[in-house]
Amino acid sequence: MNELRALDLAAGDPATWQVSEDAFDPDAQLHSETVFTIGNGQLCVRGSFEEGYPGDHPAAFLHRVWDDMPVSVTELANLPRWWGVDLWFDGERFRLDTGRLLAFTRRLDLRTGVLSRTVRWEAPSGAVVELGFERFVDFSSPHRAAVRVSVASDRPVQVRTRAGLDAHVENTGLLHWRVVDQGADDTAAWLHTRTRTTRIDLGSAFAVTLDGAEADAAAGGTDGVPTVEHTFVLHPGRTARLTKHVAIVSGVDAVDPVTEASRLAKEASGAGWDALREESDTAWAQAWERSDVVIEGDPEAQLALRFSLFQLLIAAPRFTEHASIGAKTLSGFGYRHHVFWDTETFMVPPFSYSQPEIARNMLMYRWHGLAGARDKARANGHRGAQFPWESAGTGEEVTPTWVPDPDDRTKLIRIWTGDIEIHITADIALAVMQYWLVTGDDTFICEHGAELILDGAVFWASAAALEDDGSYHFRNVVGPDEYHDRVDDNAYTNQLAAWHLRTATAMAGWLAEHHPGRWAELSAALAIDGDELERWSAVAAAMYLPVGSDGLLEQFAGYFALTDLDVAELRDPSRNVSMQQLYGIEGIAQTQVLKQPDVLMLAYLLPELFPGDGLARNYAYYDPRTDHEHGSSLGPAISAVMACRAGEPEVGYQHFLRAARADLVDVRHNAGDGIHGASAGGLWQAVVFGFAGLVVTPHGWHTTPMLPKHWTRVEFGFDHHGVRQRVVVEA
Amino acid sequence: MNELRALDLAAGDPATWQVSEDAFDPDAQLHSETVFTIGNGQLCVRGSFEEGYPGDHPAAFLHRVWDDMPVSVTELANLPRWWGVDLWFDGERFRLDTGRLLAFTRRLDLRTGVLSRTVRWEAPSGAVVELGFERFVDFSSPHRAAVRVSVASDRPVQVRTRAGLDAHVENTGLLHWRVVDQGADDTAAWLHTRTRTTRIDLGSAFAVTLDGAEADAAAGGTDGVPTVEHTFVLHPGRTARLTKHVAIVSGVDAVDPVTEASRLAKEASGAGWDALREESDTAWAQAWERSDVVIEGDPEAQLALRFSLFQLLIAAPRFTEHASIGAKTLSGFGYRHHVFWDTETFMVPPFSYSQPEIARNMLMYRWHGLAGARDKARANGHRGAQFPWESAGTGEEVTPTWVPDPDDRTKLIRIWTGDIEIHITADIALAVMQYWLVTGDDTFICEHGAELILDGAVFWASAAALEDDGSYHFRNVVGPDEYHDRVDDNAYTNQLAAWHLRTATAMAGWLAEHHPGRWAELSAALAIDGDELERWSAVAAAMYLPVGSDGLLEQFAGYFALTDLDVAELRDPSRNVSMQQLYGIEGIAQTQVLKQPDVLMLAYLLPELFPGDGLARNYAYYDPRTDHEHGSSLGPAISAVMACRAGEPEVGYQHFLRAARADLVDVRHNAGDGIHGASAGGLWQAVVFGFAGLVVTPHGWHTTPMLPKHWTRVEFGFDHHGVRQRVVVEA
Repeated sequence: MNELRALDLAAGDPATWQVSEDAFDPDAQLHSETVFTIGNGQLCVRGSFEEGYPGDHPAAFLHRVWDDMPVSVTELANLPRWWGVDLWFDGERFRLDTGRLLAFTRRLDLRTGVLSRTVRWEAPSGAVVELGFERFVDFSSPHRAAVRVSVASDRPVQVRTRAGLDAHVENTGLLHWRVVDQGADDTAAWLHTRTRTTRIDLGSAFAVTLDGAEADAAAGGTDGVPTVEHTFVLHPGRTARLTKHVAIVSGVDAVDPVTEASRLAKEASGAGWDALREESDTAWAQAWERSDVVIEGDPEAQLALRFSLFQLLIAAPRFTEHASIGAKTLSGFGYRHHVFWDTETFMVPPFSYSQPEIARNMLMYRWHGLAGARDKARANGHRGAQFPWESAGTGEEVTPTWVPDPDDRTKLIRIWTGDIEIHITADIALAVMQYWLVTGDDTFICEHGAELILDGAVFWASAAALEDDGSYHFRNVVGPDEYHDRVDDNAYTNQLAAWHLRTATAMAGWLAEHHPGRWAELSAALAIDGDELERWSAVAAAMYLPVGSDGLLEQFAGYFALTDLDVAELRDPSRNVSMQQLYGIEGIAQTQVLKQPDVLMLAYLLPELFPGDGLARNYAYYDPRTDHEHGSSLGPAISAVMACRAGEPEVGYQHFLRAARADLVDVRHNAGDGIHGASAGGLWQAVVFGFAGLVVTPHGWHTTPMLPKHWTRVEFGFDHHGVRQRVVVEA
Repeated sequence: MNELRALDLAAGDPATWQVSEDAFDPDAQLHSETVFTIGNGQLCVRGSFEEGYPGDHPAAFLHRVWDDMPVSVTELANLPRWWGVDLWFDGERFRLDTGRLLAFTRRLDLRTGVLSRTVRWEAPSGAVVELGFERFVDFSSPHRAAVRVSVASDRPVQVRTRAGLDAHVENTGLLHWRVVDQGADDTAAWLHTRTRTTRIDLGSAFAVTLDGAEADAAAGGTDGVPTVEHTFVLHPGRTARLTKHVAIVSGVDAVDPVTEASRLAKEASGAGWDALREESDTAWAQAWERSDVVIEGDPEAQLALRFSLFQLLIAAPRFTEHASIGAKTLSGFGYRHHVFWDTETFMVPPFSYSQPEIARNMLMYRWHGLAGARDKARANGHRGAQFPWESAGTGEEVTPTWVPDPDDRTKLIRIWTGDIEIHITADIALAVMQYWLVTGDDTFICEHGAELILDGAVFWASAAALEDDGSYHFRNVVGPDEYHDRVDDNAYTNQLAAWHLRTATAMAGWLAEHHPGRWAELSAALAIDGDELERWSAVAAAMYLPVGSDGLLEQFAGYFALTDLDVAELRDPSRNVSMQQLYGIEGIAQTQVLKQPDVLMLAYLLPELFPGDGLARNYAYYDPRTDHEHGSSLGPAISAVMACRAGEPEVGYQHFLRAARADLVDVRHNAGDGIHGASAGGLWQAVVFGFAGLVVTPHGWHTTPMLPKHWTRVEFGFDHHGVRQRVVVEA
């Protein structure tokens, strides 16, 4: 476990609304850039400094601006750098790797999404300068952001500022933009870029003002970098303040994004910083009113949960139903912003309960991807809709089939998940059903959700193979536990497929009864006739689902025969690698050690499949065989819930902490690549479904709380069939 | 066949020293950029405009500045754009896609390597401006280049010029540079960049002067783009002239490349354009004195041959023995500058005959790569030195194993050449022996060449497989004809391997007799004892080399049984694709149609293997089965020689024209990716070895000319054992 670094997790409220650091550590700068990401559900920007720093990964992303790339197929294009402000004092460029850093603070206010920084810096010339930086992305509208820099000095200094837009950005060494045109005058600048393959136009613009000094302003720049420069003499006791109002609009969202961006930037500049902050803060207050979860007695848990919710709120598609949240949100380059099962299984639930209109956007993203899912099923010789393991702009499969071998630059490694990790189709169905259960949104189900469920069932029935034993099998698949890939009869996959088929049968009945017109339409479009419905029942009934007399499910055919290592014994606090790294990909596959426990994941999602002491028996077997410390980042939060259900909240709390620290403490040393979105969503589930024990049924809801002993109170709200509910659990 | 476009190939001398165009065709700009590449054997720059143009592929390359890349492993990093000069007239940016182009000429003087361009342009404001551009890369030293721009106008105009260095360059979407530092004042600028993976430092610098106008000068730019700007009023009747002296130095060539580049640029600027031109022109005159081949009676042939020689001269390593010429020279991104068999088989011979010190550099490049070749042999379970199919900076194998499928962005195609196209080891040996034959350079052979030959033989003897038939075989290989890959007993490969083993045996004997100390050293280092020598003889003697009673060699086992299409009958002037594109990769492999004829290539290189009417018989069989029109760009020049040897010089001339037009006319529509270096070297071979019929033997040399009927005279020189020879062939 790493140090908590400078992140102040100790104090009570208001510290539980604030992520902060009081020193700058260049070695941890990529981690901090991720942690200090801000956004508005459309536009996100990493916490990269306005003035830059060597080795930083400056990035901002906008939903839906995809462009092609080699190997990994497609990714969101890193936006032209719009938050940059370069500064010179007496001709010396300000950057933290020059001069002398005398004091530094950085603070993210989760309540308002404002990132601020103070710097006391001694220039190489000897002048001591106080700098203040603030930025926010307007939470009340999709396109606006603002940056403010204030400077003061202990002696008269000549100051030069350069506010710019910079098209020379990259996605880890790859270029996505071509510069089309640009312009600048002494108050504003604009830039027109276009993605190289997808040819999406982007308008970036800013309007800039400088207060507190008599400044000369001039347009400047080079190709791809329009700038506005100010020069002035800064006198002691005075504070000069540069305010840069920015607008970013893509051709996906506007007919003339360049004109629109300029218009929005100037309009915002006219309205002013305070007016914009007020609108944005109001929107944030409304969002928190619906999504906040209060934990009393544990400031670290409270801050971590708010931080996780903040990261989900800024990435979740609030302004479109054509985007969803990628595995690493909009906060980095990891997994190229592709959408995996993580989204429906881990990130949709907090929204289904607290802000269902956002959950609906995310589910609609899948509905808009149905054509791609159908193509994938067809390409594999099946019918129906087989959702892609990795999805981007169109819903087609975008999992890379090969990736470069990090150990040998001339070799590639085959990636099988896109071919055979098929459970995602049922994971999406689960999210639809959970959304329906809590929202009662029959309209969505009738118009869109049912189609997702029904065409997924067509796929399962088409893909299931009837064998000589009279059972249906799925062979050569990957379950959630990726330590064991290419297995037969994965319990998670088979059980979910059977559940999906049963659910679809019930859905067909509901539609036929309550919306006969829609049923007629859908059943015709999807070719669901009586034979097909019979086939669903037959496949679900004869799905190969072995359960031993001891109530144990075997994770996949042959699992119990694998080498049974004692994970606890192998536990070594000094070891900082996964069991897979320790034993090798082939080696770990020969053991029962799990990256994450498929059977317990199944028990989490579908507890009705584990009647009596089924859960306890399976928990007792699989939990000790899980590589909790270094396995999947998806695991700990769910393990926390399962420990609660097994009556062990203190064990659950240890799992919870592991999830809570995934990004704030950079447990896996990869937070620089972006936020672990699944862990963030899982953290909410651990608190709400685990410690608070919320259960929604068709007949209402109840809680069976199981708080860690030092938690004194948990309180949150959720929307149940459109009616706000308040849940309070006290120790 | 395409139009000859605007390239003026019609006139006599001096047009035979000049490639020119009199109009600008944006659709052909990538082709023209390649054709108008200039350089000095160290630094090359494509003919991209100083002011840029939308969709251009601006590029300059410096030998040895490799950086890693995905999939294709490594490539030369496109240099920061050093030849750029941006211009504004009355505030309007000059570029050929704006305003109105009234007149345009571009001219490459092959004699001096100076590229010049004149433009008459009507600005959007209505002013008519005359612009002249000139650039050259100093042929007398490795690091210097210069650009000059002159402007005149029909009315007073406000002119702004911006000379810069631009680090924001790319290799087809990939970034290789990080900006380390930069600087500019009102007379000069410098830039320090570093490759991302290989961490090679690069210093780029320029010093700039402006004559003919009272100008204000100022430093400027943005990050990665230091600039010097001039502003002035240009009066009618006056010509203002900006001269930019540039120096480019890499950390491979200097300890402090940044300081050195600045020093060289200022020194050059002090000496002045004319002084530099004089040095450069003198070096060019010396090079042409040795390399020129005069063809009388055929201006197109004359110009094409000089153009080919020019392209080889600017790419050939004149200042280092750690680089060679890649398949597409230093003129584009094609094949990522990797060195194939093309180099030794097609490009080294012109230098072995005319400028042997350059041939020696290229062979030394292979000698420095011996460690990589030994690693490759070992990795394949063999001994000795197995040269890589594709080689870059270190001599390790850099052939990509997979490349993206152009038809499906989620798929990759397996590339087998790096695994099994093994003939290159013998091709290198052939080039060494030819170099020795013509130069008599015993010192090189003793110190380096013998090691290449001997350790290659160790590889062949180690890799040859003795089978039950008592013969040695190489199975699953690729010969030069890549329409048929993964074949057994390729005639070209087997015959060359046997030749290589016999040659190495003789080399061992020569060394032992004449340089016993070196033999003792080498034989010990390479573990060549009596048993090894016996094995060489045994393998060579029992190599599987089937020759039918009709004297026909079978290209590979089973070739004669393939479908025998009539290529002549399939010929269709309207068709513009290869037979492989027509029949598909799998389809064409099932026929006898050849991309290039392996057996005739063998007959070309080792005519002694085809006694009596062997050549005639094999020519009669294989030549008609070759896809001459659209097969390999390596084929036509060699086919021209073989036609001469078969007594058909007019047929040979048709092949010759195909090679002559490879780049000047862009026959394959891929000249934009770079010069076809093998075709360029082959063109010289077609004239010297084909039409002039030069043969060097251990006992001297002779010619058996076979001129096309309209050629009146061919004249050239070559160095025979250090003594200049003059060859004149008259009709």
